[in-house]
Amino acid sequence: MSISNLVRKIRDGELSAEKHCLETIQNLKARDSMYHAVTRVLEDRAITAAKQLDQKIASGRAVGSLAGVPFGVKDLFDVQGLVTTAGSITLNNNAPASNDAEVVRRLCAEDAIPVATLNMDEFAYGFATENAHYGTTCNPHDTARLAGGSSGGSAAAVAAGMLPFTLGSDTNGSIRVPASLCGVWGLRPTQGLLPLSGVYPFAASLDVIGPFAQSVADIRVVTEVMAGRKFEYKDDVDNLKVGLLGGWFAQDLSADLQSGMQKILQSCPITCDVTLPEADKARAASFVITAAEGGNLHLPRLKTTPMAYDPATRDRLMAGALLPASTVIQAQRLRNWFRDILHSVFNEVDILMAPATVGIAPRLDQPTIMVGGKAVSARANLGLFTQPLSLAGMPVLSAPLPPSEGNQKNMPLGVQFIAAPGKENMLLAFAEKLEHSGLLGFPVASH
Amino acid sequence: MSISNLVRKIRDGELSAEKHCLETIQNLKARDSMYHAVTRVLEDRAITAAKQLDQKIASGRAVGSLAGVPFGVKDLFDVQGLVTTAGSITLNNNAPASNDAEVVRRLCAEDAIPVATLNMDEFAYGFATENAHYGTTCNPHDTARLAGGSSGGSAAAVAAGMLPFTLGSDTNGSIRVPASLCGVWGLRPTQGLLPLSGVYPFAASLDVIGPFAQSVADIRVVTEVMAGRKFEYKDDVDNLKVGLLGGWFAQDLSADLQSGMQKILQSCPITCDVTLPEADKARAASFVITAAEGGNLHLPRLKTTPMAYDPATRDRLMAGALLPASTVIQAQRLRNWFRDILHSVFNEVDILMAPATVGIAPRLDQPTIMVGGKAVSARANLGLFTQPLSLAGMPVLSAPLPPSEGNQKNMPLGVQFIAAPGKENMLLAFAEKLEHSGLLGFPVASH
Repeated sequence: MSISNLVRKIRDGELSAEKHCLETIQNLKARDSMYHAVTRVLEDRAITAAKQLDQKIASGRAVGSLAGVPFGVKDLFDVQGLVTTAGSITLNNNAPASNDAEVVRRLCAEDAIPVATLNMDEFAYGFATENAHYGTTCNPHDTARLAGGSSGGSAAAVAAGMLPFTLGSDTNGSIRVPASLCGVWGLRPTQGLLPLSGVYPFAASLDVIGPFAQSVADIRVVTEVMAGRKFEYKDDVDNLKVGLLGGWFAQDLSADLQSGMQKILQSCPITCDVTLPEADKARAASFVITAAEGGNLHLPRLKTTPMAYDPATRDRLMAGALLPASTVIQAQRLRNWFRDILHSVFNEVDILMAPATVGIAPRLDQPTIMVGGKAVSARANLGLFTQPLSLAGMPVLSAPLPPSEGNQKNMPLGVQFIAAPGKENMLLAFAEKLEHSGLLGFPVASH
Repeated sequence: MSISNLVRKIRDGELSAEKHCLETIQNLKARDSMYHAVTRVLEDRAITAAKQLDQKIASGRAVGSLAGVPFGVKDLFDVQGLVTTAGSITLNNNAPASNDAEVVRRLCAEDAIPVATLNMDEFAYGFATENAHYGTTCNPHDTARLAGGSSGGSAAAVAAGMLPFTLGSDTNGSIRVPASLCGVWGLRPTQGLLPLSGVYPFAASLDVIGPFAQSVADIRVVTEVMAGRKFEYKDDVDNLKVGLLGGWFAQDLSADLQSGMQKILQSCPITCDVTLPEADKARAASFVITAAEGGNLHLPRLKTTPMAYDPATRDRLMAGALLPASTVIQAQRLRNWFRDILHSVFNEVDILMAPATVGIAPRLDQPTIMVGGKAVSARANLGLFTQPLSLAGMPVLSAPLPPSEGNQKNMPLGVQFIAAPGKENMLLAFAEKLEHSGLLGFPVASH
């Protein structure tokens, strides 16, 4: 059921917000043992909010545009009264959050109801949602496979149909990678569009937050509420020039991914090929800047309580804190150069298309992907195609390709659509058209 | 003689450009053995240009606004046909510059004549102009004292009356410190106003180039040519609110400096006190960012030919290249924070005033200054008051206080005037008024 249909039913009194909220929570509790997507259920808060909403509706008072819509947040968004874990046990002694994160506050002001916090890689540092403290999140389309990360809990909860939308964060691809592997929509909005107040940081110069949902329409309504403005696009999307990113972004692609992208291109009247220079170095710069900024953030705590960290996270943060300055300065220089080039591409092209990952979700018991003929760590390398794009602050929509007959495992695959900064309106209008024509979209996991 | 008078005489045929150029060069050659300000005399180029100019004038053709004005450049500006040394011997095998630096080209397009390259700290890394390869530049007002650096040759050449204007560069204070110690005017313009093309870099995020001259009028005409625009200010400078920087900028000041600044304040109708938070940390950030960016730039060469470096420069660049990333990221965070605060001060104040150095030029045989009761290296610490201001990209004019009766050594002292980015017009109009009322300005060194 779409968010707009759900809101209509609740507003019209066809569906009790409390009843829907209870069912959502029961469903979460019953099914999440398969997925490990949920870390905490906000039962008391949710039921109280739903009851108040029902009373408001019964008394004829106005209600918000997301009335009664349950949602979940990655475990690094502040939720009033809870300790924000950021997927770690090192913060356990922190004070509970005194307020909701700003975007959670904006959603609640429109009567959406937060019902759960969701699993992630510790401190968002990974592409796998393998968490030493909170477990590994499984892919709802095949629980023997990874959901991807770091916002894996957020993607899996939507893919399993447990929640209509969730929030995640994306520094190097932490929204786009799990959205792609779980077959849902995920948006990394223009950097700076959504406020980060009340969101636990990772690498400040790259951090962006955004939503997961089952359709473009749902992504749109939720992002509009969080941004406080509408994304209207009045021109004809058939006039948009669509560029396919080649070179770095064409390596090691699965055949299904290639054919899915070709079908999309064939449906677009105006297309071209685009190759970005030094995309491999841009990806390396993204790695280095992330490690350095993350290392700087965590250094005081790494000095005092190193053993409380997830071992994989600890090593990466320590290495980041100890990088030589020269390496970071070089990465920052490359970043500025690459950003200018990428922005200039949008003088010639409206939308860029690239794969989100090289293929389907890796298996839990073999968490690797093949890159250049070598098996490399999925945790570190699933962001191969998302990382270079994080450097430039543009909006990137991760879109699921539809199931295809050739895809024997029937696992989701995702594509990135990229636009110039601030062009969410164009990006969403373009994606909606492809979705309506059946070229994008993946069904919720059956269970 | 002012630049405008010199140009008038040459244009009117009262003075031959060739004759003036020859005299300037003879004077440089005769006197520079006392100062070590000059590294190379561009005799052939200068005489050729002067002859051509005289022919142009004789034939009645139009000539530029700087017709026949000789000038010198710090040894890091490209001069066509010469190897740019940047004060080092490590670049000796580089190809000669194929073009003039862009600002040199703009000055020559107005018929100014470059006659010399000028001494500096190696790679601009110092506040003393003590160069292991090219010697130490002496202060024209007392040759037993330092000229300051890193643009010490540029400041000394103007202070000695050998050249009407010169160019330098300022990363942490390398224009303002020597201008102050030599009793000349020096401008660090708004970052980005003047092109750096053909200028050997040091710390790219802080580097700015600018002029030295004997009056505000001369600074103005030269900067206008380099910037390609006029700095007109139509309002009344008496309506400007002038803030005196306290706290960090009030420590260890000589009595002469204090009384000179008080006289200026008393002449301003609207004044206030301003204290910037964490100026000490801002200075530290400037040190760290400079070391890291300089270290990144030089690392490849430090690996292959370390022993060709000036020992003091080598140590600082190596340390900079090896700083931990976390330290650099922290410095960049502090920089962004401090810049926002400093810019916001200009919502309340038009001009800020601060000392340029703690006191007069240190002796060559005792190259230290007193800070907090301790003798510290002049080479590293003369930028105490200039460094924090480099972080924020604003224009800063270093202005000489006039000789005072109490100043027994009769050595120059300088003050910094700071305005919001792009407000060179206000800054120069304000300084011109103080200069005309006798509160700023120092005579050329007698000889």
